[in-house]
Amino acid sequence: MSTLTAHRLATQPLEIAGHPVGGGSFALIAGPCAVESRDQVLAAAHAVRAAGATMFRGGAYKPRTSPHSFQGLGRDGLALLREARAHTGLPIVTECVDLRDLESVLEVADMVQIGARNMQNYALLSAVGQARRPVLLKRGLSSTLEELLLAAEYVLAEGNQAVVLCERGIRTFETSYRFTLDLAAIPVLKERTQLPVIVDPSHAAGRRELVGPLSRAAAAVGADGIIVEVHPDPDRAVCDGRQSLPTAAFAAYAREVAAAAALAGSTLSLPRRGLGVAALA
Amino acid sequence: MSTLTAHRLATQPLEIAGHPVGGGSFALIAGPCAVESRDQVLAAAHAVRAAGATMFRGGAYKPRTSPHSFQGLGRDGLALLREARAHTGLPIVTECVDLRDLESVLEVADMVQIGARNMQNYALLSAVGQARRPVLLKRGLSSTLEELLLAAEYVLAEGNQAVVLCERGIRTFETSYRFTLDLAAIPVLKERTQLPVIVDPSHAAGRRELVGPLSRAAAAVGADGIIVEVHPDPDRAVCDGRQSLPTAAFAAYAREVAAAAALAGSTLSLPRRGLGVAALA
Amino acid sequence: MSTLTAHRLATQPLEIAGHPVGGGSFALIAGPCAVESRDQVLAAAHAVRAAGATMFRGGAYKPRTSPHSFQGLGRDGLALLREARAHTGLPIVTECVDLRDLESVLEVADMVQIGARNMQNYALLSAVGQARRPVLLKRGLSSTLEELLLAAEYVLAEGNQAVVLCERGIRTFETSYRFTLDLAAIPVLKERTQLPVIVDPSHAAGRRELVGPLSRAAAAVGADGIIVEVHPDPDRAVCDGRQSLPTAAFAAYAREVAAAAALAGSTLSLPRRGLGVAALA
Amino acid sequence: MSTLTAHRLATQPLEIAGHPVGGGSFALIAGPCAVESRDQVLAAAHAVRAAGATMFRGGAYKPRTSPHSFQGLGRDGLALLREARAHTGLPIVTECVDLRDLESVLEVADMVQIGARNMQNYALLSAVGQARRPVLLKRGLSSTLEELLLAAEYVLAEGNQAVVLCERGIRTFETSYRFTLDLAAIPVLKERTQLPVIVDPSHAAGRRELVGPLSRAAAAVGADGIIVEVHPDPDRAVCDGRQSLPTAAFAAYAREVAAAAALAGSTLSLPRRGLGVAALA
Repeated sequence: MSTLTAHRLATQPLEIAGHPVGGGSFALIAGPCAVESRDQVLAAAHAVRAAGATMFRGGAYKPRTSPHSFQGLGRDGLALLREARAHTGLPIVTECVDLRDLESVLEVADMVQIGARNMQNYALLSAVGQARRPVLLKRGLSSTLEELLLAAEYVLAEGNQAVVLCERGIRTFETSYRFTLDLAAIPVLKERTQLPVIVDPSHAAGRRELVGPLSRAAAAVGADGIIVEVHPDPDRAVCDGRQSLPTAAFAAYAREVAAAAALAGSTLSLPRRGLGVAALA
Repeated sequence: MSTLTAHRLATQPLEIAGHPVGGGSFALIAGPCAVESRDQVLAAAHAVRAAGATMFRGGAYKPRTSPHSFQGLGRDGLALLREARAHTGLPIVTECVDLRDLESVLEVADMVQIGARNMQNYALLSAVGQARRPVLLKRGLSSTLEELLLAAEYVLAEGNQAVVLCERGIRTFETSYRFTLDLAAIPVLKERTQLPVIVDPSHAAGRRELVGPLSRAAAAVGADGIIVEVHPDPDRAVCDGRQSLPTAAFAAYAREVAAAAALAGSTLSLPRRGLGVAALA
Repeated sequence: MSTLTAHRLATQPLEIAGHPVGGGSFALIAGPCAVESRDQVLAAAHAVRAAGATMFRGGAYKPRTSPHSFQGLGRDGLALLREARAHTGLPIVTECVDLRDLESVLEVADMVQIGARNMQNYALLSAVGQARRPVLLKRGLSSTLEELLLAAEYVLAEGNQAVVLCERGIRTFETSYRFTLDLAAIPVLKERTQLPVIVDPSHAAGRRELVGPLSRAAAAVGADGIIVEVHPDPDRAVCDGRQSLPTAAFAAYAREVAAAAALAGSTLSLPRRGLGVAALA
Repeated sequence: MSTLTAHRLATQPLEIAGHPVGGGSFALIAGPCAVESRDQVLAAAHAVRAAGATMFRGGAYKPRTSPHSFQGLGRDGLALLREARAHTGLPIVTECVDLRDLESVLEVADMVQIGARNMQNYALLSAVGQARRPVLLKRGLSSTLEELLLAAEYVLAEGNQAVVLCERGIRTFETSYRFTLDLAAIPVLKERTQLPVIVDPSHAAGRRELVGPLSRAAAAVGADGIIVEVHPDPDRAVCDGRQSLPTAAFAAYAREVAAAAALAGSTLSLPRRGLGVAALA
């Protein structure tokens, strides 16, 4: 097994645009599934920053099961993400689905997301490995942990040591939710690698009622962070609105997550309560 | 769907031998996988009581995959469990695997456990339904939540309203642990029924290093309790020693669980620290 | 691994009421999911015999996911099965779900079926082991082949060597059919044991359009037989009508199965074509 | 659901370099997992052609779980495949794993394979859609049939109607073989689309003893073809030797497959027996 490279890494937390992830620093990465409009992105970015998010997420390129579904705003979406960073100072996490778009994505992304469908897209992994930008690597929806570590190895082998692993739910027979969030993956991965490991509760849950409980569990089990979907108006979202938290509920959510992370020895520093969004923005 | 019976239940927490479970009261059910000897049972029972367990578990009848494995001490095991209750006052949870043994089991058990393999053993479910003793019903290892609720219905339909559901891990392709603990099951079950829902982290983990993190997660996600394997000398246990917590570590474990349960609004009252085992026993 | 007992068995095919199964003799076990009425049972039994079935199946006791579903006619159903045997001479295969009913079932059953839900109901397995009647043991819906062999061992260990194993589909994430028929199980089981191995295509398919293709595949892969649901009027069946073949289509079905079995070196002797049902009945 | 495009297709069988696939014509695609050397490729190609294969397969680019495993000979491998076609006249099936290699692959491939790991690599799917070359699309290892059809839609939507679907086993809990071959997928896909559907038994089996039985089953269930690994010296193969058939056994294998295909109404015409390899080559 060739995870030796991984084991030598990251006795220090990774730093992503000046924000530490892992090593006791909890990352709260929040934002909409897809970039839809300037208003939507900026509203979401200001709201999640005010509530304590440490990075902003949003998809400009969306890998969709059907070719007839909305595929993202592409370069226009990237431009809006750049604007969100300029307004809020939050580092940007966004997905690259096609290596021909990687150069454009790198102009904006502080961390490049490789989605679950592309976990074994080795050409793309090698390309982000060469790019020397932090990579958020999501577990494939029926990948073993061994396979996830070996996929990370494709990035590491190119000399890029800044990989964050992400558990996002696996496929099982149960149909009450979209995917079965596999939280045992967190301690097992942390035994085998020093790479930070975060959790995406939104895609597993499939509906927002489950996101809070699963996020508390993820933080309590020892995750180094959470990446969660938040939208100013979830019921009008172009994708995954059903599983997005409304921005109005995000501050309370962040406090719950911070309390659970503290149980596992990880710190998420939140703005003091009482400060309104306006004050912080 | 016939879970209406379940829905009408349990606006009050269940009471098991005077101990409430659910409705904000967190149950910590601890003890060895199998009853092995008088010394082992009493040592375990005293230790877990001193550390704050609310019930004692131990198997006198063990359902084993192979007929050539240890099948439990049977009636001798039941007698030792009765003794443990007499010494500690802890209610006893023990499994019934054969309805011909049910009468004997009922002489000792404050809550009768129906294991995962028997979740759809309808003859046994109806029999414990008629027995009017609290029932701990474990989810089958590839049962849907719907099927778990319908299995509970076999007990409820006989007029026995005291059913505690238990998530214990489901079967997936991942081989790093025995079963994949499905913590989303907890909030989903609690939406659909008012029966208390607890978690068994030991069987899913398969090794004790994972039990602590999974237990924190289970409590944080909103479980009404945990049933966990604890042994005075796990390395010499006749079964499942690899996944058993040593009694020496149990007090610290209980404090972690209590803190995580508090995040989800559930209370596990623990003895004040500083009191030794001897003092409490 | 304790399948040694199994390995010493059955260099000869098993004989069930004078009908060989395995060792080159293909068993075609057909009949309705549930015994519903005298007319239904006799019509089905005559039709499947005329078309070449070697045994008759029908459920008098039905294990149902919900306690509110039809649970079978019980003893009245057993009496109708006895009548079907008297009329057609076909050996009877019927399920026992509760060991308290075993004595009644043994008065009628030439082979006692243990269903998937009860594959690890060890009390029931031991009881049929002591009964010295052939046993049809279905694989649990998420049981490994190892576990199936060890469940068989519970019967074998009692001295009953007449066990027929049955693959009936396992649970996966796919929702286009009820279960995923795992045909690789047939050659793997036949490497590990000399017990005959048959296939139930009906429950896996969930609808009759798939039963023919899956049956051909099962016979071609090397199964020693098939157990299939056939009903005189499937659209009015009380259970599983959607997956039952109509009796009118059964003769053509049997010919397809026989041809596929021949490819794998197994013989199903069918009545000559041209003889009508009346002539044979 | 957007499989309408698929439904309008292929009332005629697809033609791949003059060889029909589907519509009653059975394709037997055989060759080594990886192109290793000129000797190996030519020996394999001659042998499989002599035994009745209709196309030759071989990997020049290998997607490997670990970056440290053999990744294929690349362009040198493609050149050897071109030579194999020149010698035998067999159309070539080879995989493209990186869209930057697509142009090179198209210089050789009569059908471009998209592997299971890339089933949802939408950039690659669109690129082969634009290329107007037949595409062999393998089902992802935990993809639903719906997702496979929607992945095909990415190719079809670009105007490329020549897509062959391939079932190659899905991931389950069973560990006796690498993947669980899901043969019910064949009739279900054929209900929903008119695209030909073939089966890869080698990867599911993981060892050659199972390949024969699974191939018979695949042909009997109604597949339009099989893609199978064959190697002149499997024990020295650089990859997947354990599951490769030796060329010496391939003629007998092909006859078994042809007989099973005939049961489902599909024809694989084989060279007359008695002609040696030398005579045909």
